[in-house]
Amino acid sequence: MIEPRTLKGFRDHLPAQALARERILDVARQVYRSFGFAPIDTPALEYLEILTGKGSAETDKQLYRFTDHGGREVGMRFDLTVPFARFCAQHIASLGTPFKRYHMATVWRGENTQRGRYREFMQCDFDTIGTTSPVADLETVLVVHDLLAAIGIERFTIRINDRRVLGGVLASLGLADRATDVLRSLDKLGKATRDAVKAELIGHGVVADAVEKLLKMAELSGSMADVLAGLESLVADSESGRAGVAALRAILDGVQAAGVAEGRVVVDPSIARGLDYYTGIVLESFLDDLPTLGSICSGGRYDNLAGLYTKQALPGVGASLGIDRLLAGLEELGKLSAVETPAEVFLVFFDEAHLADYLRVASALRAAGMAVEFFPEAKRVGQQLKVAAKKGFPAALVIGSDEFAAGTAQFKNLATQQSTTIDWHGDLHVLVDAVRSQMVSR
Amino acid sequence: MIEPRTLKGFRDHLPAQALARERILDVARQVYRSFGFAPIDTPALEYLEILTGKGSAETDKQLYRFTDHGGREVGMRFDLTVPFARFCAQHIASLGTPFKRYHMATVWRGENTQRGRYREFMQCDFDTIGTTSPVADLETVLVVHDLLAAIGIERFTIRINDRRVLGGVLASLGLADRATDVLRSLDKLGKATRDAVKAELIGHGVVADAVEKLLKMAELSGSMADVLAGLESLVADSESGRAGVAALRAILDGVQAAGVAEGRVVVDPSIARGLDYYTGIVLESFLDDLPTLGSICSGGRYDNLAGLYTKQALPGVGASLGIDRLLAGLEELGKLSAVETPAEVFLVFFDEAHLADYLRVASALRAAGMAVEFFPEAKRVGQQLKVAAKKGFPAALVIGSDEFAAGTAQFKNLATQQSTTIDWHGDLHVLVDAVRSQMVSR
Repeated sequence: MIEPRTLKGFRDHLPAQALARERILDVARQVYRSFGFAPIDTPALEYLEILTGKGSAETDKQLYRFTDHGGREVGMRFDLTVPFARFCAQHIASLGTPFKRYHMATVWRGENTQRGRYREFMQCDFDTIGTTSPVADLETVLVVHDLLAAIGIERFTIRINDRRVLGGVLASLGLADRATDVLRSLDKLGKATRDAVKAELIGHGVVADAVEKLLKMAELSGSMADVLAGLESLVADSESGRAGVAALRAILDGVQAAGVAEGRVVVDPSIARGLDYYTGIVLESFLDDLPTLGSICSGGRYDNLAGLYTKQALPGVGASLGIDRLLAGLEELGKLSAVETPAEVFLVFFDEAHLADYLRVASALRAAGMAVEFFPEAKRVGQQLKVAAKKGFPAALVIGSDEFAAGTAQFKNLATQQSTTIDWHGDLHVLVDAVRSQMVSR
Repeated sequence: MIEPRTLKGFRDHLPAQALARERILDVARQVYRSFGFAPIDTPALEYLEILTGKGSAETDKQLYRFTDHGGREVGMRFDLTVPFARFCAQHIASLGTPFKRYHMATVWRGENTQRGRYREFMQCDFDTIGTTSPVADLETVLVVHDLLAAIGIERFTIRINDRRVLGGVLASLGLADRATDVLRSLDKLGKATRDAVKAELIGHGVVADAVEKLLKMAELSGSMADVLAGLESLVADSESGRAGVAALRAILDGVQAAGVAEGRVVVDPSIARGLDYYTGIVLESFLDDLPTLGSICSGGRYDNLAGLYTKQALPGVGASLGIDRLLAGLEELGKLSAVETPAEVFLVFFDEAHLADYLRVASALRAAGMAVEFFPEAKRVGQQLKVAAKKGFPAALVIGSDEFAAGTAQFKNLATQQSTTIDWHGDLHVLVDAVRSQMVSR
């Protein structure tokens, strides 16, 4: 006998979890599509050189790699960005630009499994490639907004910034050559203490006056007009810094025109994003009720997606939904359903002699768009109803031989345990309409 | 520069292909759910012993395997059945039986890439575990029927048989000890010539008279009543053989009661299925217009899913949609759409000064459920419409500054190139209603 177990850092998804994840993937797909983003897919395995070409020491270490049957060095994708860069280098000429794609797929990282991190998880990315248009930036923010709203999150905030603003401030402080270090330190604000960040900045050789200005920038508050005015003064005469402030203003105006509620999108000068390749806007999104969860949807603009694989410059902008983090957050907030079935109606199997009649009833309900589970064994009714209640069915339909003879049925609301009698006189249309209206009025 | 390329046997899915696949996955999900099957997922990587426990020499050879960072021997799943068996051994006590699940996921096999076979492909399985009820068998056939119908296949046939019938015939011919060899040979009928199958059977030591009876069985034709009567006579006094014939009759009666059109489900005594573990009904499904494609959805009943991992007997029944084979078939039949976008309306970006107005229009259309691509660059209208037509958008909406001033819009049917003018008087509701009705009447 082989012990049934999963690898460390890997997990099964049981129906309740799988249903919750499918729902969010479905919403993401619908929202991405509603803006014209088209799906693509790439292989789980790639040539190792494709994956390591851009890798840091850390991703290299985390990579699942091996030699395949044909002696090729291969690896399992650790994100969707590197495969997308390779994909664009190969196909962008035939696809044309601007190219808008989404990609929802599994990635693998052999990383430390502490703090609820898994070695297998899904990413849901969308990007617009081959245009520097600020409208694509704005649309990225709108997609993130519509996505979080469509998922049903009532309180969230999208925090945006622009790398050019950060660059402008750094330039005006004479810190352009230490940009990466300084931004990494600033990015820790909110996670580390203010003093720790201050000490780190001083450690990077930033003079006290500049540290104050940096912290002042990161902590600008008040109305959006105040924040933008503060940034404008801090970037001083840096041309790209001023362009960044103007871009942030344009996004705030744009989301307002598109009907986004006030306060959902804010400029946060402390947002820097870790990755080096962002060059324009950057964004992060937070659940207001669980800010410590970290950003659940992040992204930004970059100058060159695929420089390792093609000479063609491919600027782009996009973001990625962290679906596993989001699900963990929704669970922590008690907002995940425990329902284990995708079906609405549980049809009790009462009497084997009426099998053909049950099949007719189930088919008619399905044809009307209702999902129906017909219990496959004519066990005791109470036992079947217990199963239905445990799995979270909203309703059960009980029809025995007496009911079939009389043309009636019991509709049982499994939440309230209340039953109502449906008189359908043997007419399936009447039964279907009655069940549908009972489902709605539940 | 790193050459952008995919591994042999692996491929990218560009938007047109990815959209076609997503549509079929979506339909499969809806149909499985409509019968109460719930989703699950398992890891792509498993302990090697889990995967090889049941493996034949062939699957062993095809397995992608390696040693992970922690020194564990691991492998990538090569089907969804083995992980499901492991899953059930671990979780069935908490899930309860009967347990109905679907699983749509990628599997990997390092097999020969000739004949359009890929090393990475998707499987879409559904199974009912923990019941021997014939109603679950019947439901399996109904799910396959509803699935193929919902995909939009007009002409298909589901061919069913029962392993007990085959067993009964073999027993009555004194061939019970050579069942596997004989069934493997019979399974080649239709692929190999009749004479080749005959020679193979004789090679297995089957006497001439028995060969004739086996071929007579496999080639029984006429009405379903005739076929069943022929089988009844061939199984003679084998009790399980008679039970198999009765089960086939019950399925034919059941699918008729559920409203399945005559001829969609037929008994085909030549269907044996290669896998050894089937013990009851077996089924295969074919496109009538492309029978050489082979079965696109196959399955059957088995006595014991997870015997390698648990002492608990888990009988079940299920089937698997071969989505890649189906897509290849639909392509060969010219039934795959070449559309590269999931959106319906292409909103031309005409005049940068009206950006806020375009955003309002796009938001209003999306709020009404329409998917809208707003071109991010205010390029020439003709150029934008060319992009829209190439990608397969059904319609474009052209609104310039004159139109915004007059409260009008041009609705362009991109298939016919005909334009109509919409008078919306600056009222977004009027515009949305007009676009919707134009989309419907296209």
